[in-house]
Amino acid sequence: MQFNPSEPDGRNNTLKSGINSTGLPEPNKKYQVPARCGVAVRLKKGQAITIENTHGTQVCDFWAFQDQNNNEFLSMADTRMCLESIFPKTGDNIVSNTRRPMFKIIEDTSPGYHDTLMACCDLNRYKLLGCKGYHDNCTDNLRMALMAIGLKAPLIPNPLNLWMNIPVSEDGSTSFKPTVSRPKDWVKMVALSDLVAVMSSCPQDMTPINGLNKKPVELNFFVTGR
Amino acid sequence: MQFNPSEPDGRNNTLKSGINSTGLPEPNKKYQVPARCGVAVRLKKGQAITIENTHGTQVCDFWAFQDQNNNEFLSMADTRMCLESIFPKTGDNIVSNTRRPMFKIIEDTSPGYHDTLMACCDLNRYKLLGCKGYHDNCTDNLRMALMAIGLKAPLIPNPLNLWMNIPVSEDGSTSFKPTVSRPKDWVKMVALSDLVAVMSSCPQDMTPINGLNKKPVELNFFVTGR
Repeated sequence: MQFNPSEPDGRNNTLKSGINSTGLPEPNKKYQVPARCGVAVRLKKGQAITIENTHGTQVCDFWAFQDQNNNEFLSMADTRMCLESIFPKTGDNIVSNTRRPMFKIIEDTSPGYHDTLMACCDLNRYKLLGCKGYHDNCTDNLRMALMAIGLKAPLIPNPLNLWMNIPVSEDGSTSFKPTVSRPKDWVKMVALSDLVAVMSSCPQDMTPINGLNKKPVELNFFVTGR
Repeated sequence: MQFNPSEPDGRNNTLKSGINSTGLPEPNKKYQVPARCGVAVRLKKGQAITIENTHGTQVCDFWAFQDQNNNEFLSMADTRMCLESIFPKTGDNIVSNTRRPMFKIIEDTSPGYHDTLMACCDLNRYKLLGCKGYHDNCTDNLRMALMAIGLKAPLIPNPLNLWMNIPVSEDGSTSFKPTVSRPKDWVKMVALSDLVAVMSSCPQDMTPINGLNKKPVELNFFVTGR
């Protein structure tokens, strides 16, 4: 079967859990990214988004596209190159696939382990882990969160995996560990251009990245400025 | 200006250095990837490509697309996740953005430091390093190598950077070091489906990744099987 980047492999409540049909947020209003689902939000240049790890155990897959050209998107490979680090931290700009800064990270109350290495989970990830049938996944959440505000994923960029704890050993081997963040830790990022951001409360419940009890939960977020 | 993934920011000899207009190789014939240029080659399932680091100092940016669907391409983020390592090695499969194995690495005479973390260089990379005017770059080489056989880059995937030496420290910081490979080291990979592979002799001459004397040189390759 031919791979179509825009088309979900299955459906979940992400199609109905958008903040509204435009994705335009009400400033200072607290919104939820429901457990196992995704939400898209439009940000204007200068607005900040604060994402709260409500229970401390939850990974947030995070993507962004330029509002006027979705061929330009947040790129981890370019971010690592610009930062000369695999860990973006407070004060850093995270950049697009043209190396244009898209966000500045201005607050991070967590210990700062955010993954830039791993692809977002997709249905094939869960099949390879032994899952039969459909499993919620961040790739589909991205697709459906964009569909919920009338957009299409032109491709599936590699996300910034907030709070995802992937240590890299000296020999290059990686491991999938529980988050080291705490309840109510937050990350605050300022948008440096008009863009569409998407968050997914990662539905991974077959490895311990969302805590040793492998229970995906909700995240909160709000937008400030303008 | 809107980002167009298919359109080169400038031109070089890559447009004329294709092996022929179809990209179909003559088995066992040695071809060159000229210094600072790129070459595309079509591989049938079961054919192997051997890439030779002729002088030992040269990084080869390497990409692949499924021949019948260029939305499916070699993906470093998915490869890292499947291998649980940032360093692919002999015996490993490297996979597409659907986690389908695209190649098996069957021989590697080098010490095995191949980078999966860094975006390919583009014109903006050289501007950020202080370059004025045009500079050859791997992104444009990918675009032009595909144009030379009548194709278009649908996007710019993050490449497998053969022989590129990017150590990662315990704190996550990365550095750009000269290759540790030797003259005539080679990597041999078997194609696991029909695909289009692209190689670029990285034109980086402002950091020491292509050796301390910063002199990009040519690579050789040949295809065996069928």
